[in-house]
Amino acid sequence: MTRCVYVNGKFLQRRNAKVDIEDRGFNFGDAVYEVIFLNNGILVDEDEHLNRLEYSLSELSIPLPKPRRILSLLIREVVRLNRITNGFVYLQVTRGVSPRDHLIPNNITPGLVIMARSSNLIAKPSIRDGVSVITAPDLRWHRRDIKTTQLIANCLAKSDAVKAGAGEAWMVDENGFITEGSSSNAWIVTSNREILTRPPSNEILNGITRRTIIALAKEERLKLHERGFTTSEALKADEAFFTSATSLATPVTSIDGHKIGSGKVGPVTKKLQALYIKFSGFQKE
Amino acid sequence: MTRCVYVNGKFLQRRNAKVDIEDRGFNFGDAVYEVIFLNNGILVDEDEHLNRLEYSLSELSIPLPKPRRILSLLIREVVRLNRITNGFVYLQVTRGVSPRDHLIPNNITPGLVIMARSSNLIAKPSIRDGVSVITAPDLRWHRRDIKTTQLIANCLAKSDAVKAGAGEAWMVDENGFITEGSSSNAWIVTSNREILTRPPSNEILNGITRRTIIALAKEERLKLHERGFTTSEALKADEAFFTSATSLATPVTSIDGHKIGSGKVGPVTKKLQALYIKFSGFQKE
Repeated sequence: MTRCVYVNGKFLQRRNAKVDIEDRGFNFGDAVYEVIFLNNGILVDEDEHLNRLEYSLSELSIPLPKPRRILSLLIREVVRLNRITNGFVYLQVTRGVSPRDHLIPNNITPGLVIMARSSNLIAKPSIRDGVSVITAPDLRWHRRDIKTTQLIANCLAKSDAVKAGAGEAWMVDENGFITEGSSSNAWIVTSNREILTRPPSNEILNGITRRTIIALAKEERLKLHERGFTTSEALKADEAFFTSATSLATPVTSIDGHKIGSGKVGPVTKKLQALYIKFSGFQKE
Repeated sequence: MTRCVYVNGKFLQRRNAKVDIEDRGFNFGDAVYEVIFLNNGILVDEDEHLNRLEYSLSELSIPLPKPRRILSLLIREVVRLNRITNGFVYLQVTRGVSPRDHLIPNNITPGLVIMARSSNLIAKPSIRDGVSVITAPDLRWHRRDIKTTQLIANCLAKSDAVKAGAGEAWMVDENGFITEGSSSNAWIVTSNREILTRPPSNEILNGITRRTIIALAKEERLKLHERGFTTSEALKADEAFFTSATSLATPVTSIDGHKIGSGKVGPVTKKLQALYIKFSGFQKE
């Protein structure tokens, strides 16, 4: 359990951790966030997460709430105070508190919440054995490259997946192409062993784990293309998987009830998982 | 200033009014709201606002936080405690507090915040003299019929409008049709005195003020059609205006710098304003 969190300048007992009712994150979804995988004490791809945080904030003209160096220290202090070695850190920045008005106020102080949770992500059965996926229309707004807290469509899709006995929902655009998962990026491996994932644009979040896995695959000289794929291409794939800071690289064994490949975890997925887990355990602090 | 608010079972001094950092309204935009015009002590169209609140909640499978009768009493108590006669009430319902997870939890208690603000809306210069409007692409998600707090696109559009010296932004869909304003519904009066406003669908919020003005126009036997219109139709209109609980019926004198009609408040807009203000002053409590 999370016992101690950082909220707007203070380290607080979890039960006392609150934000103002006119925090714009609460009234307008006017906030962005990051989730960082903590593996054996290492904050995996921390720099890349903080880079993306800066990107999201800058797209919304929200100032960085603290200098990067201080953010890093605060993240480490939350991890230390909660004595967490494996799990993840959640960091949310809001535009700040101001009398409720659509008009974005100038010169208000951004809000900052940091919490951490203990979890042995690598040992999750879903990562070892894979999960089923359902598809759903992508109803989200058109700036999905900004990691905002406007997540209802994602939450509804994830919940529909779980109700259907699946582990994730892959969202589909108006042209029949998979955009991404409700909280992950979508990948397939075609019958000629080509790894495909959609290129970054305003229509998807440019996942940090996604980018790391692209780099690792290229180092291994695996055949990889950043191009979109349709649901019907995904159904015909040899393998499928999805990536994120908390799902790492999770194999997909079926989509909408259709078995993918053999219906078991495929060799390319296994290889990428192993590369990623190795990578995430050997980052310098 | 708001001095006393209702938050999750308690009437609190404004400065003490806070919500949990894992309220899903704060982490996921998983919340809906209503704004009710308070005119001379009358909560205008209160029943219709509570009906729409129930609709928004039901579309997201969030239970009503209190029976309707209790909600009405709580709203009145917030108005009374703040000694407000003219202004508006803001009510926000969130799914509730739960450890952060996209998966929507079952059986959690919804959160409820009610605040009220004093404001002489009828006397606003914008309502008397009209405002300019800019157009902007509509980037929002595709369930705009649900009045959620996922409002970043709306806030950005409103702020762009104000930066450009305008009072509202009208959002435009991929086919060139106006959807609605950033916090209002859009209307035009064509050169043959036909009043047009877009019909309800998932692409717009079915405004309460919008519906009341349709009813009032029909009672007066004015020519009115619920049909969409393009930006270029709007530029050629004789009159334009927008409606909401806090803008009532606000005249539009120019769109993207092009004068609408004479560039002054038109007779049909004036007539509808007068009908609405009369209506809103004579509702039974």
